[in-house]
Amino acid sequence: MAGNSFGQTFRVTTFGESHGGAVGVVVDGMAPSVPISEALVQKQLDRRKPGQSSITTPRKEPDRVHILSGVFDGKTTGTPMLMILYNADADPSAYDEIKDSFRPGHADFTYLKKYGIRDWRGSGRASGRETAGRVAAGAVARAVLEAQGISILAYTLRSAGISCETYQPDQIERNPLRACDPDAARRMLARIEEIGAGNDSVGGVVECRVNGIFPGLGEPVFDKLDAELARGMLSIGAIKGIEFGKGFAAADMLGSEHNDEMSDEGFLSNNAGGIIGGISTGEEILFRVPVKPTSSIARPQQTIRTSGEPHQIRTEGRHDTCICPRIVPVVEAMTALVLLDHIKRHEAMHSGR
Amino acid sequence: MAGNSFGQTFRVTTFGESHGGAVGVVVDGMAPSVPISEALVQKQLDRRKPGQSSITTPRKEPDRVHILSGVFDGKTTGTPMLMILYNADADPSAYDEIKDSFRPGHADFTYLKKYGIRDWRGSGRASGRETAGRVAAGAVARAVLEAQGISILAYTLRSAGISCETYQPDQIERNPLRACDPDAARRMLARIEEIGAGNDSVGGVVECRVNGIFPGLGEPVFDKLDAELARGMLSIGAIKGIEFGKGFAAADMLGSEHNDEMSDEGFLSNNAGGIIGGISTGEEILFRVPVKPTSSIARPQQTIRTSGEPHQIRTEGRHDTCICPRIVPVVEAMTALVLLDHIKRHEAMHSGR
Amino acid sequence: MAGNSFGQTFRVTTFGESHGGAVGVVVDGMAPSVPISEALVQKQLDRRKPGQSSITTPRKEPDRVHILSGVFDGKTTGTPMLMILYNADADPSAYDEIKDSFRPGHADFTYLKKYGIRDWRGSGRASGRETAGRVAAGAVARAVLEAQGISILAYTLRSAGISCETYQPDQIERNPLRACDPDAARRMLARIEEIGAGNDSVGGVVECRVNGIFPGLGEPVFDKLDAELARGMLSIGAIKGIEFGKGFAAADMLGSEHNDEMSDEGFLSNNAGGIIGGISTGEEILFRVPVKPTSSIARPQQTIRTSGEPHQIRTEGRHDTCICPRIVPVVEAMTALVLLDHIKRHEAMHSGR
Amino acid sequence: MAGNSFGQTFRVTTFGESHGGAVGVVVDGMAPSVPISEALVQKQLDRRKPGQSSITTPRKEPDRVHILSGVFDGKTTGTPMLMILYNADADPSAYDEIKDSFRPGHADFTYLKKYGIRDWRGSGRASGRETAGRVAAGAVARAVLEAQGISILAYTLRSAGISCETYQPDQIERNPLRACDPDAARRMLARIEEIGAGNDSVGGVVECRVNGIFPGLGEPVFDKLDAELARGMLSIGAIKGIEFGKGFAAADMLGSEHNDEMSDEGFLSNNAGGIIGGISTGEEILFRVPVKPTSSIARPQQTIRTSGEPHQIRTEGRHDTCICPRIVPVVEAMTALVLLDHIKRHEAMHSGR
Repeated sequence: MAGNSFGQTFRVTTFGESHGGAVGVVVDGMAPSVPISEALVQKQLDRRKPGQSSITTPRKEPDRVHILSGVFDGKTTGTPMLMILYNADADPSAYDEIKDSFRPGHADFTYLKKYGIRDWRGSGRASGRETAGRVAAGAVARAVLEAQGISILAYTLRSAGISCETYQPDQIERNPLRACDPDAARRMLARIEEIGAGNDSVGGVVECRVNGIFPGLGEPVFDKLDAELARGMLSIGAIKGIEFGKGFAAADMLGSEHNDEMSDEGFLSNNAGGIIGGISTGEEILFRVPVKPTSSIARPQQTIRTSGEPHQIRTEGRHDTCICPRIVPVVEAMTALVLLDHIKRHEAMHSGR
Repeated sequence: MAGNSFGQTFRVTTFGESHGGAVGVVVDGMAPSVPISEALVQKQLDRRKPGQSSITTPRKEPDRVHILSGVFDGKTTGTPMLMILYNADADPSAYDEIKDSFRPGHADFTYLKKYGIRDWRGSGRASGRETAGRVAAGAVARAVLEAQGISILAYTLRSAGISCETYQPDQIERNPLRACDPDAARRMLARIEEIGAGNDSVGGVVECRVNGIFPGLGEPVFDKLDAELARGMLSIGAIKGIEFGKGFAAADMLGSEHNDEMSDEGFLSNNAGGIIGGISTGEEILFRVPVKPTSSIARPQQTIRTSGEPHQIRTEGRHDTCICPRIVPVVEAMTALVLLDHIKRHEAMHSGR
Repeated sequence: MAGNSFGQTFRVTTFGESHGGAVGVVVDGMAPSVPISEALVQKQLDRRKPGQSSITTPRKEPDRVHILSGVFDGKTTGTPMLMILYNADADPSAYDEIKDSFRPGHADFTYLKKYGIRDWRGSGRASGRETAGRVAAGAVARAVLEAQGISILAYTLRSAGISCETYQPDQIERNPLRACDPDAARRMLARIEEIGAGNDSVGGVVECRVNGIFPGLGEPVFDKLDAELARGMLSIGAIKGIEFGKGFAAADMLGSEHNDEMSDEGFLSNNAGGIIGGISTGEEILFRVPVKPTSSIARPQQTIRTSGEPHQIRTEGRHDTCICPRIVPVVEAMTALVLLDHIKRHEAMHSGR
Repeated sequence: MAGNSFGQTFRVTTFGESHGGAVGVVVDGMAPSVPISEALVQKQLDRRKPGQSSITTPRKEPDRVHILSGVFDGKTTGTPMLMILYNADADPSAYDEIKDSFRPGHADFTYLKKYGIRDWRGSGRASGRETAGRVAAGAVARAVLEAQGISILAYTLRSAGISCETYQPDQIERNPLRACDPDAARRMLARIEEIGAGNDSVGGVVECRVNGIFPGLGEPVFDKLDAELARGMLSIGAIKGIEFGKGFAAADMLGSEHNDEMSDEGFLSNNAGGIIGGISTGEEILFRVPVKPTSSIARPQQTIRTSGEPHQIRTEGRHDTCICPRIVPVVEAMTALVLLDHIKRHEAMHSGR
């Protein structure tokens, strides 16, 4: 039973390999009569595309979206939306080196073990390019959420050992790290360029804030809002964890410190990160995810061939030294998918009262 | 659209409030002809029940499971298993204090906002008692997994600011913390008793290890094994995050450090925590979750009444000072549910090859 | 992947065997704050219970429902409702005869083939008694639908070769056949009693009418309203088909005869049975289902033992000569489940417009 | 919550409107390493395409399938398969007439009521063209089923008041009706051409036989094999009912006639149509569906405009006088989707025994 769909009432199904015919998404459950254009979707895709700065891969993909169904006369019709991005022609010979080897950190080994067959052109289905479908779907969800006054903002909080010290949301799109502190961003950039020059890569921490959610969103006991956001985030290849509010730090706190007290003006703190009992409190939803260093590095690493024979590999070509700024729009997109799905589920639950 | 089911092929649906008629679970999708007894299930439930030590609530609940369907002559029949635990009679007057107040840290406020109505006897559906159904279902899943050579072991790694320094799996069930280091456990216990004496509570970190999983388990791109485990863990009330392998520490590592290299004898490290690209590598699956301090504390806290009026509350009665040792079997149960579901999904995916 | 749940937003999961501990249902997705009592549910269960007339089995089951969760202070809370009917003690020795034989027309053979194990006490999970859970859930759904002005009415249209000639809805509950024509009912009864006296059984046709549905209900292209009703009906053991509106007769009609024309006062005919393109038209929803003759008959039939050896069997005990009147409330219940689920899905679809 | 997906373990999601950019399907859950080519899929699509005979619409659509993902080097990879058919350019001015009117028998009215917006170019999403995606997915499923020795054969049993009197399976693809009796087919054709000449249309009955299914397939209690086939069939636009085995005739049979007795050589009859208790018996699965007359007819009919004003309409252009021969491959495709999904579900259920 395959796992290429996400959401129950706003349901997206992505398809495509990095070097097959296309990548994209089918969105089912979109409300009718909502204005959606290719430009609106493209805007988000452009934030994810390669070649935006010195620390991201310069590979050129036009990444141009086509909406082939579900929109008529500029408006959604309530029928499934196919959004597709054709892959530019690639030279498969570039992949001869990795055809029969397992690149460390990549899913080459696990895909072959799972399926017994592997599309070795690039990373196949495991490519980050798959997330283009998510970002396209997220752009549609976002249009609905924004109309309801809900905002989603992710950014790089830390990278290359350097943390943001200020929170300046208007600066996020103005630096190549998508960091919330432009000074920290400058230092991150310098350090990441050094790391890249050394044929290495580095990770970071992305933080996300959601504002404008009414108290009451989430479906206990299994589909708690934090549980669903966690699933969404961990479904992004490079993300290895998540924490809400105080997160791991809560482990060392006393109950009297961690409990969010209330006054007649609302909560006096937000240690819970906006979700208690799996349901939104109405406070800001706040979570952080660790991003692992990019797996592709141009320095020799020990591995084996598919035949089992030891082998040294270095991943040629130019890659993202730090993927954080390109993960940011994916984090926002997955957040939007979870939220819109839950808003619809919430209304279904209450229907018939 | 409510969220009280978990899993797709091994599907559990829990029901029940802490002070209603019963709590329990329906398990659908269990293979037929597997020997399952109430005793086998009870054994796991006893690990979760209250009153096991000085730091857990002494409230006495018999927590005796009854299997009312799906088992015939000591074996499963492939039909749904109803496992039910009747609630002992409770004195609802004990809840007069919380009837119209929101206890800080509890889901009282969010449930009322979501549903517009709240079962104020105890924590209602948000009670930890709901997890009894999960543990019962997990015991069934576990029986299948163990027969396949798969082991799941969770334990308290840190609590009250004290971390385990050794890993002694055979000591876990021998100390009240279910910690993997008996020396650390003694110090944790002493510190937690102090905290409890001060009418406060504390959290911790629980770690879980899975061994015996074949490489190839997990369903990209959305139902990655780590994404599904994350959802399962975050669906447990007290858990506020998760990290796999190096987790948040990966954010500061270089690619050359983090990538798990391979030799002809297998992986040379396990920084990924046994999952790459959302699929098991065959190495130990390793993750950690932060447990927040118990919300119920017997010291005054600021809150409001349902009417909005400010109010000071202290949660009377005796509560778990540290819930970690009782969370351990719940973590194991949710892990078992994810794994068995994915094993079944894996077979369905490959069927027809 | 088991199939004991029905519905997506109003989701019911039934459990139980005819001679296990209990039968019943968990309902997930019920709106909060709706008044629901055991009496309201019992009223529908009493219409399904055995022993109502000379042509139904006189076996006495109290069939008393207990609601053990999801209702507080007489109102639903939005959490899962467990509704359970304990089985009265039965003498399993009564089933020695069928323990190792396959009763013709029953699911004894297919269950053993599917699961490799069979609960041979009665019909186990395949017993009509399983439908008690459906009727209980249907009673809850119905309460919501009726408050919205939606009515569901099923009745015996034909049995023992005799068809109703008039439609007198107020007579349905006043005759043991639940037929819509009391004169036809008298003749049916006489003929069925004769058939029963001859140790045989007979089937019939049940018709169902739904009124008050707004135009626009149903989810193309796969979850068309008629497709979902068809699935619901065919999931009832004795039902072997379904037709909407003109149904099979449409096969012989011309387009000019079958198309439902419209005027400014609405549709001029309802050959479609209230559903076009899988979506309700606002006209009466009308469908019919054939009910096969009861499989249990007290006359010798050829069969084999589980060992494969030929064997003659006659099903002792007293059975329903004609199950139609007891199928009627089950048809209504399944209709209610489909409709409420679709109303909730409809609202989810439109949410966010 | 939208309904454009079908199946749980072999899950297809169709997309597309008749005059949008494309129609097609995403297939998720296909086993890896199965040889699948565009030619194999095209073969089934060609059976559904227009212009095959004098009684089907001569509209020329190339209906050429492109597989853009999920297949590598001629074999499936276990990742989602996107199969797409681009729509040929159509002249939207041809639809001016129907833009603001409701065509009798069509879903124009119900789609507008449901969604509040309608793609009035052709029938939009309600077009029979949507079934191309189903046929493509069915071709893939069929490749797996055939390798397991399972055959699916549908054919026109009756049309224009004329029934087949013989069953000659090898003649089905040799006559334009896809009827199982070539003599009857000739008479049907003559009569249908007459009806067409009179600007009218007609329906028929399609029958389907499945052979090679092992006893034990189906998932009681709700996902019975017949229930799922019923849902699949009724999800096809023109189909208004279904019956298995004796079907509606069972309503008039005695238990002693209808029960399928057994000997040591197997079942002595197959009145049940190969499914008892929702599970396959191992006998031939046999069902029939009524097909309504094509809604588009070139004779004046009463209708209203979207404004509510009465209006006379005749659907210009040339249409299928009888859709039965083009429904046949769709019936087979939906049958294949149900069967493969259930085979996978069956294996998932038994996994872990």
